[in-house]
Amino acid sequence: MLLSGGLDSYTAAAIAREEGFDLFALTVRYGQRHFYEIEAARAVAHALRVERHVELDVDLRAFGGSSLTSDAPVPKDRAIDPAEIPSTYVPARNTVFLSLALAWAETLGARDIVIGVNALDYSGYPDCRPEYIAAFERMASLATRAGIEGVRFTIQTPLLTLSKAEIIRRGIALQLDYGLTHSCYDPDPAGRPCGRCDSCLLRAAGFAQAGVADPARAR
Amino acid sequence: MLLSGGLDSYTAAAIAREEGFDLFALTVRYGQRHFYEIEAARAVAHALRVERHVELDVDLRAFGGSSLTSDAPVPKDRAIDPAEIPSTYVPARNTVFLSLALAWAETLGARDIVIGVNALDYSGYPDCRPEYIAAFERMASLATRAGIEGVRFTIQTPLLTLSKAEIIRRGIALQLDYGLTHSCYDPDPAGRPCGRCDSCLLRAAGFAQAGVADPARAR
Repeated sequence: MLLSGGLDSYTAAAIAREEGFDLFALTVRYGQRHFYEIEAARAVAHALRVERHVELDVDLRAFGGSSLTSDAPVPKDRAIDPAEIPSTYVPARNTVFLSLALAWAETLGARDIVIGVNALDYSGYPDCRPEYIAAFERMASLATRAGIEGVRFTIQTPLLTLSKAEIIRRGIALQLDYGLTHSCYDPDPAGRPCGRCDSCLLRAAGFAQAGVADPARAR
Repeated sequence: MLLSGGLDSYTAAAIAREEGFDLFALTVRYGQRHFYEIEAARAVAHALRVERHVELDVDLRAFGGSSLTSDAPVPKDRAIDPAEIPSTYVPARNTVFLSLALAWAETLGARDIVIGVNALDYSGYPDCRPEYIAAFERMASLATRAGIEGVRFTIQTPLLTLSKAEIIRRGIALQLDYGLTHSCYDPDPAGRPCGRCDSCLLRAAGFAQAGVADPARAR
């Protein structure tokens, strides 16, 4: 499972655990602008009682191309339209992440990779769409020794078609503590969310629609 | 272009340059057992006069699963049979490398990724086969903003169906200095090739069949 420290990957992993999977968590330190996401990933991994949590450094700032991996400003207060891909898109990020997860899955003998992508309440990132996930899955089996030996890798995307409110309701039913998570792209130096980036706006709308208070805001 | 420091990636890049491409070289330090490969990559990048050479650290030792990323012994003196994948296979390595190249290509505005894979005189690695490359290519366009905007990424594999001897003849015609390259999986502490791993055996057979002395052996 890919674990970012946000609420989606936490919920996706918890759903997988509920379905009986043992969890191995991979967090990629790809050059995020802040460290709060990584701290949240550690707290979430602990809460999920994962078998193992690997943090891997892959510095995508070497390539740039995104406001999340450079000093370019993060867009604020925008009307989110999935048809318009914002500057927070990190080129090929999910492909890099899933490839690393595939490498680990093959060595573990795992055949399921869990990722919390969502193609409903999202920022229009191309690598969150179902047709992309299907193409990655097909490639993954051809890429590996396990695939040649007959293993079919499955990319588990339990949140793919849920709204943010549905994700949150699902997590609350699983007794998740969303106070552990961090969603903001651009927190202040103390780690407090800006409340105005896409990620904050989607999160706030999700909690509002779910009719639940966001426990992270109480801290 | 992916650049390892071996003779295949050097030749593939030189063919691309001959075809008129400007070259941007990516070398991944993935936890190789030795540093000679990286030094060779730098020498080759210099000889090719690339526009830019990025060395990126992605420590695949975190996952293990290969004799190239662990202390397990490298197989020696074996009869190479592409139907049997040896322990030097690094799980999903080319997928990780191509994903990183895709990330950089997208930020550069490039649409061609060059990789020196070969499916003839090779060790049977699944991620060197044409059907794998085709599946990656299809996934790559779905993965990216560029893909959504109509760019089709092409994975250039100029060596895919050449024999090792043909690769070497092609490189010599392009006046490449193979003395710059390093192929051995398990060199001695001074960097001298073992002469007995798959990579050394394939290289020696290639030079022999091409009827050319290996300039690296003269050093």
